[in-house]
Amino acid sequence: MKIRYELLKTEKNTKARLGRLHTNHGVVDTPMFMPVGTRATVKTLSPEELYDVHSGIILANTYHLWLRPGEDIVEKAGGLHKFMNYKGPILTDSGGYQVFSLAKNKKKDITEEGVHFKSHIDGSNLFLTPEKSIEIQNKLGSDIAMSFDECPPASADYTYMKNSVERTLRWAKRGKEAHKNPNQSLFGIVQGGAYQDLRAYSAKETVKLDFDGYSVGGVANDGESKEDMYRAIDYSIPYIPEDKVRYLMGVGDPVDIIEGVIRGIDIFDCVLPTRLARHGNAFTKHGKINIKNAKYKEDFTPLEDTCDCYCCKNYTKAYIRHLLSVDEVFGKRLLSIHNIRFLIRLTEELREAIKEDRILEYKEEFLKEYQGDSYES
Amino acid sequence: MKIRYELLKTEKNTKARLGRLHTNHGVVDTPMFMPVGTRATVKTLSPEELYDVHSGIILANTYHLWLRPGEDIVEKAGGLHKFMNYKGPILTDSGGYQVFSLAKNKKKDITEEGVHFKSHIDGSNLFLTPEKSIEIQNKLGSDIAMSFDECPPASADYTYMKNSVERTLRWAKRGKEAHKNPNQSLFGIVQGGAYQDLRAYSAKETVKLDFDGYSVGGVANDGESKEDMYRAIDYSIPYIPEDKVRYLMGVGDPVDIIEGVIRGIDIFDCVLPTRLARHGNAFTKHGKINIKNAKYKEDFTPLEDTCDCYCCKNYTKAYIRHLLSVDEVFGKRLLSIHNIRFLIRLTEELREAIKEDRILEYKEEFLKEYQGDSYES
Repeated sequence: MKIRYELLKTEKNTKARLGRLHTNHGVVDTPMFMPVGTRATVKTLSPEELYDVHSGIILANTYHLWLRPGEDIVEKAGGLHKFMNYKGPILTDSGGYQVFSLAKNKKKDITEEGVHFKSHIDGSNLFLTPEKSIEIQNKLGSDIAMSFDECPPASADYTYMKNSVERTLRWAKRGKEAHKNPNQSLFGIVQGGAYQDLRAYSAKETVKLDFDGYSVGGVANDGESKEDMYRAIDYSIPYIPEDKVRYLMGVGDPVDIIEGVIRGIDIFDCVLPTRLARHGNAFTKHGKINIKNAKYKEDFTPLEDTCDCYCCKNYTKAYIRHLLSVDEVFGKRLLSIHNIRFLIRLTEELREAIKEDRILEYKEEFLKEYQGDSYES
Repeated sequence: MKIRYELLKTEKNTKARLGRLHTNHGVVDTPMFMPVGTRATVKTLSPEELYDVHSGIILANTYHLWLRPGEDIVEKAGGLHKFMNYKGPILTDSGGYQVFSLAKNKKKDITEEGVHFKSHIDGSNLFLTPEKSIEIQNKLGSDIAMSFDECPPASADYTYMKNSVERTLRWAKRGKEAHKNPNQSLFGIVQGGAYQDLRAYSAKETVKLDFDGYSVGGVANDGESKEDMYRAIDYSIPYIPEDKVRYLMGVGDPVDIIEGVIRGIDIFDCVLPTRLARHGNAFTKHGKINIKNAKYKEDFTPLEDTCDCYCCKNYTKAYIRHLLSVDEVFGKRLLSIHNIRFLIRLTEELREAIKEDRILEYKEEFLKEYQGDSYES
């Protein structure tokens, strides 16, 4: 079966939506944040720890799994769910973003057929096409596959962007034709950078191809401002049908999640919570803190008094600081749990706010306390 | 309260003992293997994962915690149990072994008062004495503290070893006098290398000082043969009273655990299971395997069919191999869980064998299958 999006409610004053996504691996609530498990593991964590933080869908990266262990091994294992022992839904990206970001300093050759580029591991020659991306994702057996798209830099000029949007549309069509798995849904991706007419065109034409869900892509690229990101959403969303789920790729900053939800986005993903954790950073309602700071040396309180995660219920800042200071993995685990839970809790609160038609008030209250990166610096 | 060792039974044909150790953090069965949590964390694992593998006592290292985060911080946290959230009993070593092993290529100066040496972290000057070791361990608040001893190399000549044993006895006495905590037990350590008369002397004199338990030390040093280790146990054990628990320090090879139990040892500890895990090695009943071996690429069976651990119940060799190959922490977690459970399961089987007076048969059956390091190589 394909996924089905059930729209429960649209918030009174904004485009924020409360919904439910029915998948072959359970029903999940939206708005939702998806933790990223690049190589079939959300860094340092077990599936049980993900269930504990109320994870819904998780994301795995097609590009990385294609290279190691290879999609054939995952297929022989019975698919990604069995391979990595995750019982909830899984979304795979198309590999497009990695081709353009990991290989950004290496020569690559974009042709109509696909992209020739070098492996980030051993520099060997690779060639990814829309059909190949779909074939790999079919073998990985995710619940949701993504169309293979070009991810041009935010700095691309209008002509480049227009041609790129056209090519991404042709690639989306080819991918859809190559996609045969009735138990895997396929999403289209809206591109067009910061150009209003290109976003509108990309959205309308992508929707004509009739996908199971739609993503707003190309928004977390280097050099893009937050205003450009919000505009890209505003330019795209009006053309996406109400009965399809909307996914903003690669976005995990708390403020961006709130702004995205207000603009009608249902799903987010980002490596931010686990990456921050590895560097000793924790989300708090006041902003990010770095637990390695000497002031936490004798701080025997949890990261957040009001947090319900395993880390906050059992460990103090002083202990987590100690673990990070001596480079012990368990510290990174604890921070990963907290940071993912922080973003999932944020989406839970946003769902409550939508129910009560008070999402703008929620945003205002949140921003009054939250100082982002500038907190503590 | 001090710990209390309850001898339930001595096996008919050997010196193997079935016992129970009553501590302020629960009653644990012996023979027992203690996982090592050097820096107040058993590498990569949570306390809950340790309970799941049926861990009893765990060990933490005084030397490492003295340097980071410092014993005062642990004391202010309410002691090690609260600091690291481990609810079972904890044993701390004295720091003696680390002083001699970590600083082995650095200049150190052993005086009657204590040892001057350089920090392995920043090369700063450190001075550890019997009194200081006890003071640190008191602050750490472990259930069991160890006496500060000298750990001479296995190659030390008779005269050196004799003088060293005498000094370790004087240090043991000083440590005991400095030890005031009625809720922390203190163990004495038998030294004497491979010299029968020195082991006997060290054991008798240490027992005269009346400790809460006794350790056979200096057996896992560089250059010592397995035969020397077994002899060191045989030379020491006859002089240790039956009503006190006996601990063989730093030993975790499965065969050595069996040989130790047969010779009357109750407790073992070793970093081996977690260290092996980090390098991709797993214990199996046939011997050690390295999961990174290409032959496991498409092996969709667990590490061991008969193992009841979280890793073996949920994950395949192919998945663990993938995680290790791409250096993902979760692979090390899974192998750590399996390896620790392997040794704890071994002690559970040894306890059963003691009950049934068939420990020599058990050893024979075990050795028939177990090829140690030579398996697969």
